[in-house]
Amino acid sequence: MRIGILGGGQLGRMLALAGYPLGMTTTVLDPAADPCAAQVCPHIRGEFDDFAALFDLVKTSDFVTYEFENVPVETVRWLADRVPVFPPPRALEVSQDRVTEKKFLESLGIPLPPFQPVETRADFDAALQTIGLPAVLKTRRFGYDGKGQAVLRTPAEAEAAWLKLNGRPLILEGFVTFDRELSLIAVRDRGRAIACYPLIENQHIDGILHRSIAPAQACGEELNERAAEYASRILQELDYVGVLTVEWFQDGPRLIANEIAPRVHNSGHWTIEVAAASQFENHLRAGCGLSLGRTAATGVAAMFNFIGTLPNASDVLTEPHAHFHAYGKADRPGRKVGHVTLRCESAEELQAMLPDWDRRFSRS
Amino acid sequence: MRIGILGGGQLGRMLALAGYPLGMTTTVLDPAADPCAAQVCPHIRGEFDDFAALFDLVKTSDFVTYEFENVPVETVRWLADRVPVFPPPRALEVSQDRVTEKKFLESLGIPLPPFQPVETRADFDAALQTIGLPAVLKTRRFGYDGKGQAVLRTPAEAEAAWLKLNGRPLILEGFVTFDRELSLIAVRDRGRAIACYPLIENQHIDGILHRSIAPAQACGEELNERAAEYASRILQELDYVGVLTVEWFQDGPRLIANEIAPRVHNSGHWTIEVAAASQFENHLRAGCGLSLGRTAATGVAAMFNFIGTLPNASDVLTEPHAHFHAYGKADRPGRKVGHVTLRCESAEELQAMLPDWDRRFSRS
Repeated sequence: MRIGILGGGQLGRMLALAGYPLGMTTTVLDPAADPCAAQVCPHIRGEFDDFAALFDLVKTSDFVTYEFENVPVETVRWLADRVPVFPPPRALEVSQDRVTEKKFLESLGIPLPPFQPVETRADFDAALQTIGLPAVLKTRRFGYDGKGQAVLRTPAEAEAAWLKLNGRPLILEGFVTFDRELSLIAVRDRGRAIACYPLIENQHIDGILHRSIAPAQACGEELNERAAEYASRILQELDYVGVLTVEWFQDGPRLIANEIAPRVHNSGHWTIEVAAASQFENHLRAGCGLSLGRTAATGVAAMFNFIGTLPNASDVLTEPHAHFHAYGKADRPGRKVGHVTLRCESAEELQAMLPDWDRRFSRS
Repeated sequence: MRIGILGGGQLGRMLALAGYPLGMTTTVLDPAADPCAAQVCPHIRGEFDDFAALFDLVKTSDFVTYEFENVPVETVRWLADRVPVFPPPRALEVSQDRVTEKKFLESLGIPLPPFQPVETRADFDAALQTIGLPAVLKTRRFGYDGKGQAVLRTPAEAEAAWLKLNGRPLILEGFVTFDRELSLIAVRDRGRAIACYPLIENQHIDGILHRSIAPAQACGEELNERAAEYASRILQELDYVGVLTVEWFQDGPRLIANEIAPRVHNSGHWTIEVAAASQFENHLRAGCGLSLGRTAATGVAAMFNFIGTLPNASDVLTEPHAHFHAYGKADRPGRKVGHVTLRCESAEELQAMLPDWDRRFSRS
C-alpha cells in the first residue's frame, strides 16, 4: 500500500516509520528542501497548491492523508476527486476556522466557551460587551502553538490585542477557568468502528506543549466515557476515517472543548511505546481499511517535548525508563526537535521522576 | 550518528527502522539490486569483498555492524582498521566455523554435545566410532536454516550423508536428546554492562524457525540465570559489543549449547513490541556507546514467521493482539517474508490462541 502525506514534518516522519512494518510505503509532499520526513521516505518538493507536484503525489499514492491542518481545503478536495483521502476534506475545513469549528461543535451539543466572530471594531466592542473580561482574542485561521492569540484581562489589554490582531477575521472567546488541559485521541476505521486512547493531561509553556501525562491521572471512567462519547459524535457527523484529536479544558466534572485537530497529535506520541498500537499505526490502519489496533495504555507515560535544542541521546538514555526520539531537525529556538517518553509500570513511580524531568526540559 | 550495515535483509531493515528515533541514519551494503532494507535507507550495492564499495560504506559510517555471519572475516577486519566495528571481528570468526565455535565454548566450560572435526573418510569413521549413532553431520561453515546438515540414525544414513556432504570441512556432533530448543539474546554495551532478554522457546519446521514463545514458559529463574551466566562468559571473553544470540537445547535441567550468532536474531523479533527496548534498539545503543534499554518482557509473546507467502495484513490484523511485520520482499518458497507477534497479558490467554495460529502459519 502506498501512502501520500501532505506535510513532511515529524508527524509525517513518524507516520512513515509506522507504515513500513505494515507493508506501507510513504511519500511526503512538502515545500521545504529537506523536511525531516524526507530522511526516512521519498519526498516530492512542492507547495500545497502546486498541482503538478500534487499530481505526482496522486500517481505514487493509493491513499493520501495530511499531517497538519493548514493545507488548503481546495487541495484536499482536488486530491479526493483522484485518490481516496482521509480524514475527509470536511474535517479539515471545519478545523481550519475557529468559528466554523465552534459552530459545528455547538451543533453536536458539545460544551464550549462562549464565542463571537469579530470582523470590525464594532463587532469587537459588542463581543466584549456580551462575553466580558477576561476573554481570549484569536485569529480565526492559521493559529498553532499559541500563535495568533492574546488573553485580555483588562480594557488596556483588550486595546493592545485589537491593535495587534485586527485586519484578519477574529474570534473572541470567553476565558475558561480550568483545572487542567486534556486531550482525547480517537480513531475511526472504514468499517465505522471507533476506538479511543485514554484521556491525556497536557501542560503548555509559552503556548507550546511541554509535557503530556497518559493516562491522565484522577480522571475516572466517567470523564473518559464522556470525552469518548463527544468524540464519537464528531467522528460520526463527519463520516471520519483516521485519527482525530480533541483538546479539552477540564473544570471539575466539566469538559469544555477547546479545539479539534483532524490528525495525529503531539500529545499522542506516548502511544508509540505505551499502547499496543500507536496513533500513527492506527491512523494508517484506519485509512487503509484495516482493523484498528488496541488503544489501552499498557503502562503510564510522560512525554516531554525537546524544544529548540536536542539533548544528547546519551544524557537521556541513562534513564532506563526513557525512550528517545530525534526528528532529524536542526536546532532552532521554539522548534520541536524531538521528544522523550518515560514509561513506568505505576503512577507513583512516574510521579517521582517528573520534577527532575520537568526541570530538564522546560526551557526553549 | 551514521551506521553502516553489512547485509540488507530484514534484520538490516529492522535495525534501520530502530535507528531513526535514536537520531541514527543507516546505510546498508548488499550485493542484491533491491535488498529489502533498501526500501527504508540508502543502499550501496556491492559484494562483501568489493573494497571500493566497502570504502564507500566507511565514508558514510561512524560505526559499522553486520546483520548476518557469513560476511568474510577479512572484510570485517579491514573495516575495523578504518571505522569502529561491532560486534568484534573475532566474534564473527568464532561463529563462522562450527569447530572453532565449539572449541571456544568448550574452553569457557559451557556444556556442549560431543563433537569431532571431519576432513577425511578415516576421520569420519573414527568420529562415528567415538561419538556413536545417532549423530549429526554438518558442514563447518555457511550453514543456516538447517541447510548443510544431516541426522544419522543408521549406518546407511551415515553413508548417505557422507556421500552428500563430503569434500567440505565437516563436523560430527553427538545427537542431543532434548525437551525443547531455547535461545537467549544478550547484549553488552561499551561500558561493559550486560543485559539479557528472558529465554525464548523456539520451534523449527524443516530447519526454519516457525514459532518463538517469550518468555519461554516453565523455565524458572534458575535456568534463565544459568543461560545469562554462560552468555556473559562469551561476551566477556570476546570483549563483545552489541547483541549476541545463543541457541540452546534444553534437556530437563540441563542447557547444552547449539550455536551462537553474533547479531540480532529471528527469535528476538517479539522484543519490538514486548520489551521496553527491542534487540534492534539495544544493538545500536550498545554499538554507539549509549546505555542499554530495559530487556524484561512487558507481556507474553508468540512470534510466527511468514515463510514463502506474505498473508494479507487485513487477515492478520483482525486479531487485536497481533502486530504485523512485512519485510517488503517478493514471495518465494522457503523465504522469510514477514512475521506476526501476538502480545498478551497472560500466558493462559496466549496459549489459547496458539493452536489456531500454528495451523495458519506452519506451511511454507
